[in-house]
Amino acid sequence: MSAGRLIGVGVGPGDPELLTLKAVRCLRDAPVIAYVSAQGRPSIARQIGAQHIPAGRKELNLALPMSSLPELADAAYDEGSSRISAELEHGRDVALLCEGDPMFYGSFAQLLSRVSEHYPTEIVPGVTSISAASAATRQPLVFRSASLVVVPATLPGESLAARLRIAEAAAILKLGRHIGKVRRVLAELGLLERAVYVEWASTERERWTQLADLETESAPYFALVLVPAEPYR
Amino acid sequence: MSAGRLIGVGVGPGDPELLTLKAVRCLRDAPVIAYVSAQGRPSIARQIGAQHIPAGRKELNLALPMSSLPELADAAYDEGSSRISAELEHGRDVALLCEGDPMFYGSFAQLLSRVSEHYPTEIVPGVTSISAASAATRQPLVFRSASLVVVPATLPGESLAARLRIAEAAAILKLGRHIGKVRRVLAELGLLERAVYVEWASTERERWTQLADLETESAPYFALVLVPAEPYR
Repeated sequence: MSAGRLIGVGVGPGDPELLTLKAVRCLRDAPVIAYVSAQGRPSIARQIGAQHIPAGRKELNLALPMSSLPELADAAYDEGSSRISAELEHGRDVALLCEGDPMFYGSFAQLLSRVSEHYPTEIVPGVTSISAASAATRQPLVFRSASLVVVPATLPGESLAARLRIAEAAAILKLGRHIGKVRRVLAELGLLERAVYVEWASTERERWTQLADLETESAPYFALVLVPAEPYR
Repeated sequence: MSAGRLIGVGVGPGDPELLTLKAVRCLRDAPVIAYVSAQGRPSIARQIGAQHIPAGRKELNLALPMSSLPELADAAYDEGSSRISAELEHGRDVALLCEGDPMFYGSFAQLLSRVSEHYPTEIVPGVTSISAASAATRQPLVFRSASLVVVPATLPGESLAARLRIAEAAAILKLGRHIGKVRRVLAELGLLERAVYVEWASTERERWTQLADLETESAPYFALVLVPAEPYR
């Protein structure tokens, strides 16, 4: 019997209609569906893909601890990859649902690195939250010879500034409680006027505004800031 | 009669199965389908979406000159937006097919800026060539607190180096005849060993290799170089 494949399936930024045809096929065909969840909360990736998971299909819910201790996370990924490997060993493909794109931030990298030495893998790319946020604002993010930098807001202010200074456009992810720092750094760089805040892009809760107009010190997990390249007309 | 909408529809990186469900719906429902082509060549965006365009549907092929003279390109975009506007004026929605994601490089920005002052617009985000290339190589591009820089290979070597130096991961687009310069800059920065070359990602012609192993001075338009963030295990 040949081993099953681990298929990392990008389910896109939130709107279930932004799944690709290939993602839908994988959800329909894979004998096992897996996803990650923050312990005690529903899996967001499963919610996005829910309507394409056949009733009664075997599911693996891989719970991750809410703690930021690396040892706890590592233990959870070890356990998750063991559960996935047990299915692969029995010849069953496992479709692992990933928010956005599997290779672009997110926890899939952790599971892939543990499983890919021993089993075949495949990746189905997905639409990122950056593309969804740009679509929401209807402002092209980057074009022609402009460059783009993508940075997590979790970096120290100086590291953020060094990276934001060099590119013509930017996307700042993982805002959360870092939004005050991001606003301050962008203001120092003279970029605040161009910065747009977007939350829950592509979902019913989608909302966007100029960052300068936003008065808050914390943002939801699914929020980001875009600094679109300057228009050329 | 209310005006029609211009809908920028991302058709993804090449594999027709990487269209989103929403893109498929737009192609099926829009009374007019538009796309850009390099003069004398078939439109790549139309080829990707072809199987979802109903027979007999009205199509606008917006031919762009092969010349790099800005005035010629501007004139072509002016004419293209006039043809689109004429349809919108008659209350017909126009779905404009875009390779990859509409807001991420590409010519849609040019048409959007000309049309959006006068008519309603909507954007359907798509899967980018960067996500498709990462999927091909099965190496996560960026994770945790790493940052990513996206640069066009058309930039001068010094500008490339300044941007590549600052981030933990990189994607270098629009390779073409610039691949020699890119290889040289990456070697100077000590990044050549990590650099992966990918062409025609997600299509039947997909091919990838370590950039250091590639002996060529020119690459197809649909080729890029990825420098994935360093693994953390």
